[in-house]
Amino acid sequence: MQSELRKKLLDAFTHAEGEFLSGQYLADLIGCSRTAVWKHIEDLRKEGFILEAVRRKGYRIVKTPENIIPDEIRLGLKTEFLGRQIHYEESVDSTQKIAHRLAYDGAPEGTVVLAEEQLSGRGRMDRKWYSPKYSGIWMSVILRPNILPTNAPQLTLLTAVAVVQAIEEITALSPQIKWPNDILINGKKVTGILTELQAEADRVKTIIIGIGMNVNQKTDDFPENIRSIATSLSIEKGEYISRPAVIRAVLSNIEKLYLLYLEKGFYPIKLMWESYAVSIGKEIVARTLSGNISGRALGITDEGVLMIEDESGNVHHVFSADIDLSGKI
Amino acid sequence: MQSELRKKLLDAFTHAEGEFLSGQYLADLIGCSRTAVWKHIEDLRKEGFILEAVRRKGYRIVKTPENIIPDEIRLGLKTEFLGRQIHYEESVDSTQKIAHRLAYDGAPEGTVVLAEEQLSGRGRMDRKWYSPKYSGIWMSVILRPNILPTNAPQLTLLTAVAVVQAIEEITALSPQIKWPNDILINGKKVTGILTELQAEADRVKTIIIGIGMNVNQKTDDFPENIRSIATSLSIEKGEYISRPAVIRAVLSNIEKLYLLYLEKGFYPIKLMWESYAVSIGKEIVARTLSGNISGRALGITDEGVLMIEDESGNVHHVFSADIDLSGKI
Repeated sequence: MQSELRKKLLDAFTHAEGEFLSGQYLADLIGCSRTAVWKHIEDLRKEGFILEAVRRKGYRIVKTPENIIPDEIRLGLKTEFLGRQIHYEESVDSTQKIAHRLAYDGAPEGTVVLAEEQLSGRGRMDRKWYSPKYSGIWMSVILRPNILPTNAPQLTLLTAVAVVQAIEEITALSPQIKWPNDILINGKKVTGILTELQAEADRVKTIIIGIGMNVNQKTDDFPENIRSIATSLSIEKGEYISRPAVIRAVLSNIEKLYLLYLEKGFYPIKLMWESYAVSIGKEIVARTLSGNISGRALGITDEGVLMIEDESGNVHHVFSADIDLSGKI
Repeated sequence: MQSELRKKLLDAFTHAEGEFLSGQYLADLIGCSRTAVWKHIEDLRKEGFILEAVRRKGYRIVKTPENIIPDEIRLGLKTEFLGRQIHYEESVDSTQKIAHRLAYDGAPEGTVVLAEEQLSGRGRMDRKWYSPKYSGIWMSVILRPNILPTNAPQLTLLTAVAVVQAIEEITALSPQIKWPNDILINGKKVTGILTELQAEADRVKTIIIGIGMNVNQKTDDFPENIRSIATSLSIEKGEYISRPAVIRAVLSNIEKLYLLYLEKGFYPIKLMWESYAVSIGKEIVARTLSGNISGRALGITDEGVLMIEDESGNVHHVFSADIDLSGKI
């Protein structure tokens, strides 16, 4: 109940867009006394919000706290269902692990898991993902689309488009997508996406999308072995970036694309994806478990499978691989 | 370490098949003193084993305890990897839930979760599965085959064959399989199988097979609403059935078929499956989410998909449905 009131309060400040809201207005809105409103405002102050209170005008939020707290995400979040439930932790093994548990226990679609740091963050194929405290976005999103397990890779591609659009909105940078799950800026990795699923043999029960995004790391913050291939939004933009703003933009774009996907299928997502893809039309090498395939990347199929045309003109369908953009083995 | 010694000890008694093993033999085997052997024997006694100790002959197991304890399963288990790690609980929400957590945390292939009762056991489509204390087998098995998510239903069918063979071995009853996941005896359900998976978008990480088997329930033990459609091994056989013996037989048969599957693919499993299937060649109705399909069940595809030929001669491929054997809607 407490958190429901809190949501209403933050929604009201969101809609007010920096204007004052009177104590009486807030009291009517959330159905409590003006004294109770004042207590809620004090709670927000304790969490790091800076609020201005002016007699006869009411309250407005001047500044939001710098760490990610669920209220900070909710303030300004304009989604219908995505991120309406936020599970926040200071430190976790991995947000995917938490999300898997919540999902199996019946967490509603749109539930988001956020952490300030991951102690053992992982990417595809159980590769380590470096997730230091406070400097990135380590997030998992629970979706429950009625799709076949075969189509799960489409959600990776959808999320990649959403992340690119969010970065464009917030930073005006121009990220590109490297199939299947990396977002690059100036050729360096800024975001990885890990799509996992829980399913019965014949139906998907849950899609759990993990997003790891480097936001405010400096170059020296990266371990030496990934320094030449990793970057952060802050490095590329040359300024400090607000993580909550990026999270809100990512959630808002995922929701928009996901609703489009449920209504129209994968085709419109595919067109957007290809417009951001770094490899289409280029000579690439796909390193698969059963060997390397060199050739020109033609695009993706309606299922999200990469098509590569080799020099004999044969078209290979690649379900799972690492892509080398240099074009030579 | 302690549990490793315990395993060696029980393996030795398994191989002895009721013959005496000397204290010195056991001490040499597990690399400890004869006094330590005696302590291990006392521990077994505390857990409900009845052991005979005879001077100059040694020890032998006369009777094993009636509740399921991991050691009781291990005694006599002749598998290579299946059930070598047993996670046992007196009472759980569901063994699938525990298995999901263990699997995500990296539990090795072959790990088995066993419970004496499930408080919220579930079957396909989140249907309730009644799992009262001590009278059934509520078990989950963790496998990690390198297969595509599309092929996961094959593991349901494989498990159904293993369960049928185990019931035949232990009781000499003749169960039949109702596609996709029910085992019937005399037309009533004795076992349900629930295959779930954890996957990355493009590869299966874990298959978690849940098996719910009614063993020693009496007719009155079943809730009234399922009394006419459910049965137990004990009802059908007319005698008390040892759950550990059934569990060992199930694990042993799953392992045998699984190794065959990994080596030769699904085809040999499919042939066995069809030989036990109740519906093949019969008029059936498949109730799917998108409507009913009536016709003759032709068999299953290599992927485990049910084929039904309607009266116009069209063949329908059914991925997910409930089957009505009466033949009329």
